[in-house]
Amino acid sequence: MSSIAVPPAGGEKIGVAVLGATGAVGQRFIQLLEGHPWFAVRELVASDRSVGKAYAEAANWLVSPDIPPDVAGLPVKGLDARLESPVVVSSLPSDVAGNVESRLAKEGHRIFSNASNHRMGADVPLMVAEVNPDHAEALHTQRKRLGSEGFIITNGNCTTITLVLPLAPLHRAFGVEAVIVTSLQAASGAGYPGVPSLDLIDNVVPYIGGEEEKLQSETAKMLGGWQGGQFRPAPFPVSATCTRVPVRDGHTESVSVRLRAKASGDELIAAWREFRGRPQELNLPSAPKHAVIVRDEQDRPQPNRDRMAEHGMASVVGRLRPCPILDWKFVVLGHNTIRGAAGASILNAELALAEGWL
Amino acid sequence: MSSIAVPPAGGEKIGVAVLGATGAVGQRFIQLLEGHPWFAVRELVASDRSVGKAYAEAANWLVSPDIPPDVAGLPVKGLDARLESPVVVSSLPSDVAGNVESRLAKEGHRIFSNASNHRMGADVPLMVAEVNPDHAEALHTQRKRLGSEGFIITNGNCTTITLVLPLAPLHRAFGVEAVIVTSLQAASGAGYPGVPSLDLIDNVVPYIGGEEEKLQSETAKMLGGWQGGQFRPAPFPVSATCTRVPVRDGHTESVSVRLRAKASGDELIAAWREFRGRPQELNLPSAPKHAVIVRDEQDRPQPNRDRMAEHGMASVVGRLRPCPILDWKFVVLGHNTIRGAAGASILNAELALAEGWL
Amino acid sequence: MSSIAVPPAGGEKIGVAVLGATGAVGQRFIQLLEGHPWFAVRELVASDRSVGKAYAEAANWLVSPDIPPDVAGLPVKGLDARLESPVVVSSLPSDVAGNVESRLAKEGHRIFSNASNHRMGADVPLMVAEVNPDHAEALHTQRKRLGSEGFIITNGNCTTITLVLPLAPLHRAFGVEAVIVTSLQAASGAGYPGVPSLDLIDNVVPYIGGEEEKLQSETAKMLGGWQGGQFRPAPFPVSATCTRVPVRDGHTESVSVRLRAKASGDELIAAWREFRGRPQELNLPSAPKHAVIVRDEQDRPQPNRDRMAEHGMASVVGRLRPCPILDWKFVVLGHNTIRGAAGASILNAELALAEGWL
Amino acid sequence: MSSIAVPPAGGEKIGVAVLGATGAVGQRFIQLLEGHPWFAVRELVASDRSVGKAYAEAANWLVSPDIPPDVAGLPVKGLDARLESPVVVSSLPSDVAGNVESRLAKEGHRIFSNASNHRMGADVPLMVAEVNPDHAEALHTQRKRLGSEGFIITNGNCTTITLVLPLAPLHRAFGVEAVIVTSLQAASGAGYPGVPSLDLIDNVVPYIGGEEEKLQSETAKMLGGWQGGQFRPAPFPVSATCTRVPVRDGHTESVSVRLRAKASGDELIAAWREFRGRPQELNLPSAPKHAVIVRDEQDRPQPNRDRMAEHGMASVVGRLRPCPILDWKFVVLGHNTIRGAAGASILNAELALAEGWL
Repeated sequence: MSSIAVPPAGGEKIGVAVLGATGAVGQRFIQLLEGHPWFAVRELVASDRSVGKAYAEAANWLVSPDIPPDVAGLPVKGLDARLESPVVVSSLPSDVAGNVESRLAKEGHRIFSNASNHRMGADVPLMVAEVNPDHAEALHTQRKRLGSEGFIITNGNCTTITLVLPLAPLHRAFGVEAVIVTSLQAASGAGYPGVPSLDLIDNVVPYIGGEEEKLQSETAKMLGGWQGGQFRPAPFPVSATCTRVPVRDGHTESVSVRLRAKASGDELIAAWREFRGRPQELNLPSAPKHAVIVRDEQDRPQPNRDRMAEHGMASVVGRLRPCPILDWKFVVLGHNTIRGAAGASILNAELALAEGWL
Repeated sequence: MSSIAVPPAGGEKIGVAVLGATGAVGQRFIQLLEGHPWFAVRELVASDRSVGKAYAEAANWLVSPDIPPDVAGLPVKGLDARLESPVVVSSLPSDVAGNVESRLAKEGHRIFSNASNHRMGADVPLMVAEVNPDHAEALHTQRKRLGSEGFIITNGNCTTITLVLPLAPLHRAFGVEAVIVTSLQAASGAGYPGVPSLDLIDNVVPYIGGEEEKLQSETAKMLGGWQGGQFRPAPFPVSATCTRVPVRDGHTESVSVRLRAKASGDELIAAWREFRGRPQELNLPSAPKHAVIVRDEQDRPQPNRDRMAEHGMASVVGRLRPCPILDWKFVVLGHNTIRGAAGASILNAELALAEGWL
Repeated sequence: MSSIAVPPAGGEKIGVAVLGATGAVGQRFIQLLEGHPWFAVRELVASDRSVGKAYAEAANWLVSPDIPPDVAGLPVKGLDARLESPVVVSSLPSDVAGNVESRLAKEGHRIFSNASNHRMGADVPLMVAEVNPDHAEALHTQRKRLGSEGFIITNGNCTTITLVLPLAPLHRAFGVEAVIVTSLQAASGAGYPGVPSLDLIDNVVPYIGGEEEKLQSETAKMLGGWQGGQFRPAPFPVSATCTRVPVRDGHTESVSVRLRAKASGDELIAAWREFRGRPQELNLPSAPKHAVIVRDEQDRPQPNRDRMAEHGMASVVGRLRPCPILDWKFVVLGHNTIRGAAGASILNAELALAEGWL
Repeated sequence: MSSIAVPPAGGEKIGVAVLGATGAVGQRFIQLLEGHPWFAVRELVASDRSVGKAYAEAANWLVSPDIPPDVAGLPVKGLDARLESPVVVSSLPSDVAGNVESRLAKEGHRIFSNASNHRMGADVPLMVAEVNPDHAEALHTQRKRLGSEGFIITNGNCTTITLVLPLAPLHRAFGVEAVIVTSLQAASGAGYPGVPSLDLIDNVVPYIGGEEEKLQSETAKMLGGWQGGQFRPAPFPVSATCTRVPVRDGHTESVSVRLRAKASGDELIAAWREFRGRPQELNLPSAPKHAVIVRDEQDRPQPNRDRMAEHGMASVVGRLRPCPILDWKFVVLGHNTIRGAAGASILNAELALAEGWL
């Protein structure tokens, strides 16, 4: 495959294959790409159980009343299928994502993945489009390794993306030195069927396997740099406790931070409100106007009220107060299957296309 | 009223008046005192709206299928009624509790109160029976001030009690220097009607008015001492974020602590497992065998599974891990209307009776 | 006020006052009227507590992240305010709606009301725009009585509207003779604060005051006619049991019907699928393309998946099976605060404007 | 095995094997048999995944803080294990229950089963102990067929048991002619993991596979008789709609009935309040004092408040009103995993022991 450019208005859209199309995040991919100006879903890939069925038959569609009609009749392909779409978005489960994504990248596909397998790869960008687009430099190294024009760009865990959006402007302006975070995560973060009802009716589960480690390692990689041919993680610790609460969508996080430079609350709020990145400069189709929204009400953000801010593409911050132990504390909320997953991949794909990386 | 002693087996029980009897905590008082070996509910006090009605008619009974038959027919008295019961337990709302409790104490009643009004009083014990029974020394000062045999002993906010039970043995053994806590609190903590359904179906509210301040001030008072005629609060800071989650009963808290003395995880667990107080030594009727329970499973404690441990009278701890920023982190859960409210007052009353303070 | 016509594209919109603007349905009015081609919210009325405040300060906004900016700054007026807007939509609570609406109608305002007070009035249309637009004939009588160009058109209870949409085509085609219905109603039907969380976490409440009677009387009035200067209710009985379940929005109803003419399942489905009314013929701005949607899946309709079908303006039917006792049974779902309340009033207002009744 | 008698007080208890021990109902069996005067759990059987593990390791214990200590260490046996316990209680899933139960019955075990496989068997009692203990006559036929002292007694589906308890006294006194029922069923009815959280947070699912058919066929068998060597089902139709709601435990049912004999509401209530069966006459250990409880409050029964009435062994009835189409309507609630499952089997086993059928 050769280089790919933004299609002209009215021109033919770029084909996209969705890996893991029947899952909760796969459904969001399909929903968010409906009517996209640049991309069109052309291929669907899922596990053996679904192969050969029409998508409408294979998927237990959850995210809206109806499957977009263009997609409902597409046949589901298997994990080993050869694909035609140049762009591939992936929300495969981690037990299969690693190999499938590697093969497709070697075959020349541009992969934008939610799967965790390649996130910590030595030449694989772990990218939040507003935060570390410069990590795309690693693609040269990666393409050389793969011997292909294809590549893999990952985005982080949903909890990490929600957190790193407000941390990034603080880190740039004041230097983050330590973060203690407790998350209250939504059921959709575990996919479908995911968490049994008997675990979440009148209950909280104070543990999510692997999640706390990801918050530490992914935050450090995202807020670090690419220097001398390798990623240099940001050196500060993140201490996380991750819990599951009876909410459909939207992860809430209670955060305390220590900053290198002393800063006032107004300065923090200004850093958030003024935060802009390449997606905003390029006016990308899925870019939120503000990637960080600050709410003044004392009881916000709340998942039910705030998760759809900026069409689900923003982190919503509130309750900024001094922390008597570290420096500041606040609450942040993000839509875990939009900004925290499918929307993040799509925004990365848009950025890659607009920046000419494809 | 003169001094009161533990009634002999089969002897006449000590009369108890319940203030705020129709509320969520008032109902727990009535439920927990059913069949109590020493105490019997004889009088019920509630707001004007209920006065003169039979209790069964006035209360929207929530905590079990039926109101205990001895209580169902009792008439509800008003806030200004003169009472006959020597012992008074109170869960009045704070807009009226202050004056009513003060008046009754002056009239000679022994008050055990959940209301927040007198908790920080200069001569009022804020007591968790296993933690700071020595604060009863303040009663001499208080009785002198009141000119009465009556007194007020308060217990803390539900979130604080849940937290202070596992903090106390750590503080004694290793010295607590700092605490960062995020709570996930149950709906019953706001009473009835309390939190609207539209705020808690598929939602979390990351704010509870006044709660964060109470966690700081009450923890310090409880873990401090009474010296030279006044309370000396423990000097460490508590940084709290309090949230409301869709759970009926049981507050979950994610806690990070810094300790003065270095300690291993096994030492912390041993401190919790060996923790005993006067209620256990005296084998009080409502005393849990263990006031702190440690669960080994990685996904515990959970409100639905663990809140009724020790009949709702224990704090249940789990997930002890090193905190890379402070020293240790863990999750603790307590039943907010039992150990965190009505049960705490009753245990204080039992302690007072057994120790001869009445 | 004189007769009002549909404003030309780009022309000045017709001013609307929202009564009960801070409540759950009032918020839906404001949300649904944002960007409306014919109407613009100009005045807000609420109870004393809110009067004089800016709307953003008075309302606990629940239905989306932010209040529409044009409305956020409007001052809240009191129940006795004189209004300038010719069109008034009302979701006042029934303890005040009756008098306020009567006064405003006499003053010339065209009222479209959700309140129950005037629904059974002898000359007041109880109108579902697709079902009984011919009841508008009663406006002549009503206007004469009021001595004004103003009038009141009501829409039904949310549960009734959801039910009557699929009943209407069955009644026309086959004659409904009896209906037994059990509803599973959402929390928002009780407004805000409405149902306490302690009544709906891990619980169902099998009673909603007044609701069962309304289902009987309102269904009969809507499916009846206006003849000889009075309403003639449809003669069949409706036996209802109404319950409240832990759902935010969307009433689900389990329905059994007896029909006069024998009909096959396919004929019932055809009657639903072919059902069109004046809103569809006139292509009104808020008209659903299909007021009754039929789902083929065996486990639909579901509130979370189906309530937003047709932007919340349709009744969604599924699970049609023979009933061995009556004739047929099915499940129907409708969005209670959109089609069941605010959307129904707005659609009535659009119909009135398009038909020249204003 | 020879005949088994009630053990004397202090004598050795009768060993019980629990089939399907790790599931939601299996856990209830273990919980309810803790401290039982006649029976003791000695063997546990579950699917391959659990075989060889200690129970505490194999089960995800949900129903209380801790597994009874006598059971926690028992090894889990496989489906093909030979068992020593004379009494076997079963909550195996239906894909394996049929064969396993048949084999064990042939080997001489007395089986009390929740599984649906044998419920409609031509010589297998489908028994609710208060309702149709006379169906035990079929055991002669069954034992002859099996060539063994062993047998299978089943109890019904949880929804059916809840319904049949209040129907039985009405049928005896007045003759039931038709029943229309809509159920609102709890998540635990689907076992663990069972229903995904994403299907029940802010949602209702109006379909439960196979449930509606069971309500019809099982009710007819239970309320019919055993005559001339075969079961004669009661001839009336039951028209059911079964839905799943966000409740942990407790099925609520909205019921309309037609009766042969005209009866007043007071007569119905009297029939329920006076309803007694063999379990009450024999004062069996698990027998509720009243198998049907009538609540007078207009908003009861509710799952959270009423499911534990009579330790979960009663059907709780409320809201009796005339039905304008059939004759009467009411709401009934039962605990689906206690009276609707494990408790029903245990009560049948107690009855069998006390009546000398073992």
